[in-house]
Amino acid sequence: MNKREKGWANIAEIAGEQGIVAMEGVQAVSPRLANLALEFGYGDIYDNDALDRKQRTLITLSSLITQGQFGHTLTFHFKAALRSGLTKEEILELITHCSGYVGFPKAMNALTVFDQTYKEWIEEQEYVK
Amino acid sequence: MNKREKGWANIAEIAGEQGIVAMEGVQAVSPRLANLALEFGYGDIYDNDALDRKQRTLITLSSLITQGQFGHTLTFHFKAALRSGLTKEEILELITHCSGYVGFPKAMNALTVFDQTYKEWIEEQEYVK
Amino acid sequence: MNKREKGWANIAEIAGEQGIVAMEGVQAVSPRLANLALEFGYGDIYDNDALDRKQRTLITLSSLITQGQFGHTLTFHFKAALRSGLTKEEILELITHCSGYVGFPKAMNALTVFDQTYKEWIEEQEYVK
Amino acid sequence: MNKREKGWANIAEIAGEQGIVAMEGVQAVSPRLANLALEFGYGDIYDNDALDRKQRTLITLSSLITQGQFGHTLTFHFKAALRSGLTKEEILELITHCSGYVGFPKAMNALTVFDQTYKEWIEEQEYVK
Amino acid sequence: MNKREKGWANIAEIAGEQGIVAMEGVQAVSPRLANLALEFGYGDIYDNDALDRKQRTLITLSSLITQGQFGHTLTFHFKAALRSGLTKEEILELITHCSGYVGFPKAMNALTVFDQTYKEWIEEQEYVK
Amino acid sequence: MNKREKGWANIAEIAGEQGIVAMEGVQAVSPRLANLALEFGYGDIYDNDALDRKQRTLITLSSLITQGQFGHTLTFHFKAALRSGLTKEEILELITHCSGYVGFPKAMNALTVFDQTYKEWIEEQEYVK
Repeated sequence: MNKREKGWANIAEIAGEQGIVAMEGVQAVSPRLANLALEFGYGDIYDNDALDRKQRTLITLSSLITQGQFGHTLTFHFKAALRSGLTKEEILELITHCSGYVGFPKAMNALTVFDQTYKEWIEEQEYVK
Repeated sequence: MNKREKGWANIAEIAGEQGIVAMEGVQAVSPRLANLALEFGYGDIYDNDALDRKQRTLITLSSLITQGQFGHTLTFHFKAALRSGLTKEEILELITHCSGYVGFPKAMNALTVFDQTYKEWIEEQEYVK
Repeated sequence: MNKREKGWANIAEIAGEQGIVAMEGVQAVSPRLANLALEFGYGDIYDNDALDRKQRTLITLSSLITQGQFGHTLTFHFKAALRSGLTKEEILELITHCSGYVGFPKAMNALTVFDQTYKEWIEEQEYVK
Repeated sequence: MNKREKGWANIAEIAGEQGIVAMEGVQAVSPRLANLALEFGYGDIYDNDALDRKQRTLITLSSLITQGQFGHTLTFHFKAALRSGLTKEEILELITHCSGYVGFPKAMNALTVFDQTYKEWIEEQEYVK
Repeated sequence: MNKREKGWANIAEIAGEQGIVAMEGVQAVSPRLANLALEFGYGDIYDNDALDRKQRTLITLSSLITQGQFGHTLTFHFKAALRSGLTKEEILELITHCSGYVGFPKAMNALTVFDQTYKEWIEEQEYVK
Repeated sequence: MNKREKGWANIAEIAGEQGIVAMEGVQAVSPRLANLALEFGYGDIYDNDALDRKQRTLITLSSLITQGQFGHTLTFHFKAALRSGLTKEEILELITHCSGYVGFPKAMNALTVFDQTYKEWIEEQEYVK
């Protein structure tokens, strides 16, 4: 399995169907950026056991909340977090923890996005059954 | 134990002697800000079991690296991370993981700070023995 | 009146009905984050006379514009600013002042949000009469 | 031609019809901010030959992507970039280059905005013919 | 008095001797950037009565703390703030207010810079007598 | 030549001796991060002709100034810019252009770093002769 194939395998495992669809969307606009994200992002970076999936998710979410990235990207990674096994309680606590480090406005915005995302996630899970 | 006392207890446990000294320094300039940081930051936020110390450290470090806070604050929290049981390998991997989410310049700067902090930490540990 | 009650009283005074509704929304998703925002944010921080309401509003708005927070949060604080007695002229000048410190793109985005918010505010005021 | 007139001439040349409409919109809300943007931004800054239009566009787009400004402002400057002669390939490569300096989330968001903007631009060009 | 002269007059009034020295330093490296800062920044922006000096200082400081600008720039504007009549207590409260909107790390860093700046300021005042 | 070798070749060409020394420094602390920066950053990203070296330098510098990265990283890339053929006048104009998009504080800080870096660069060039 070469690096790009590993990237596809990892994104499927980490983000599920939504991950594949999103990356195919990037590929349709810029195959070059998609391939770099697959090879470097999902291939190289995730291909290391010093941190596990849940730990990587905490790091990613904290970075996105700090950056003020509150659109599709945050929704995407909240779903990947739920998929990786983080519970609703853990994600709510991550947002609360962030409030002391980035202030209330970003924490409140993250909470709004999570509330909506969690409802979608529950619906999607029930649809699957 | 009231909230402020809990804050002092938590900062001592999380950040050790450096934590007490740093907070006393804040207190000397602004007792009000120090008390809020103790009661809200180290008292309220850390007083919850949904996430453990190591997880909180990953979130805090990711936020600081994303914010581009590369001075004393990052040194302080790298030491708290080592104290909380994060290994050198885990912290290096956290920095590597961040490179894909915040870009190489901030990751490289964080690495430089960590390299210096780790040397100080080792020296301090040996001094303690 | 304990700290949380003071927080509710302050948010009602600062942000009016919209403030209570917003905080109840936060409470429905994360009672913990809502309580921290009430006790620490609206309770502790606003419970001090070294700066008055109008001054605090200028500081808050400048921070939000600098952070690039241009969604509901900015709308919320523009309405709180109008409620605290800041005039349209003062808010427009705040945005202009910011242009030199954060650049035109963020200033222009803030202006767009304010223009819309001010129209809503006028309508709401007339509805009240 | 005074500085403000030069600003109007430059914005027309750089951003075309959309530029004039946008600046008239700013003027309707804050004549003062519009005049400063025209005189300082489009008058003074662009009135210098040390860098050409295409180079200025690369600098502006990189700054907006780094700031995380992914709304109307980025759309506006992507259209100005296409107008200044930057090709689709050059803009896609600019976004890819940024991925290493600001991380994948901002690069991916910029790509989404560009994809939509480019489609609008093509339609507008065909409408003009 | 033309716009540039007004800029010099305003910077002298706002920031005193340090302001003139700083701007002469900019001028020695880039006369163009210095002139734009004088004409647009200190000339145009400050030449308006909708907000007074103390209010502008609160806005500027909040923006710098939010941006994480903790070097010479913050020192410079803390001194300008003290010169404009903001008291030590008001500036400490501004930093505390910011803690809820930008998080503790930036507030703590601002406090450290202010503590040092205030000591320098007191010494400079005594030297003047 | 594999991707890592291409990375070494590119960093040598782009940043010269300082580039090799800097990357060896990263390698000594984290071989993994160094290899990713070489393979992805200097290997993949720079291995594309849609933008030339000078254009990439403008994009990189604009991003760093916008991020507020004013330490070694900015010095490093200012030297790489001079090496890539950007003139002093072009870099000063880039900083001036940025002032309208990120505000004066970051532009002024970048100017201070450039002034110092340019002096070092001239000395280094004379030493080489």
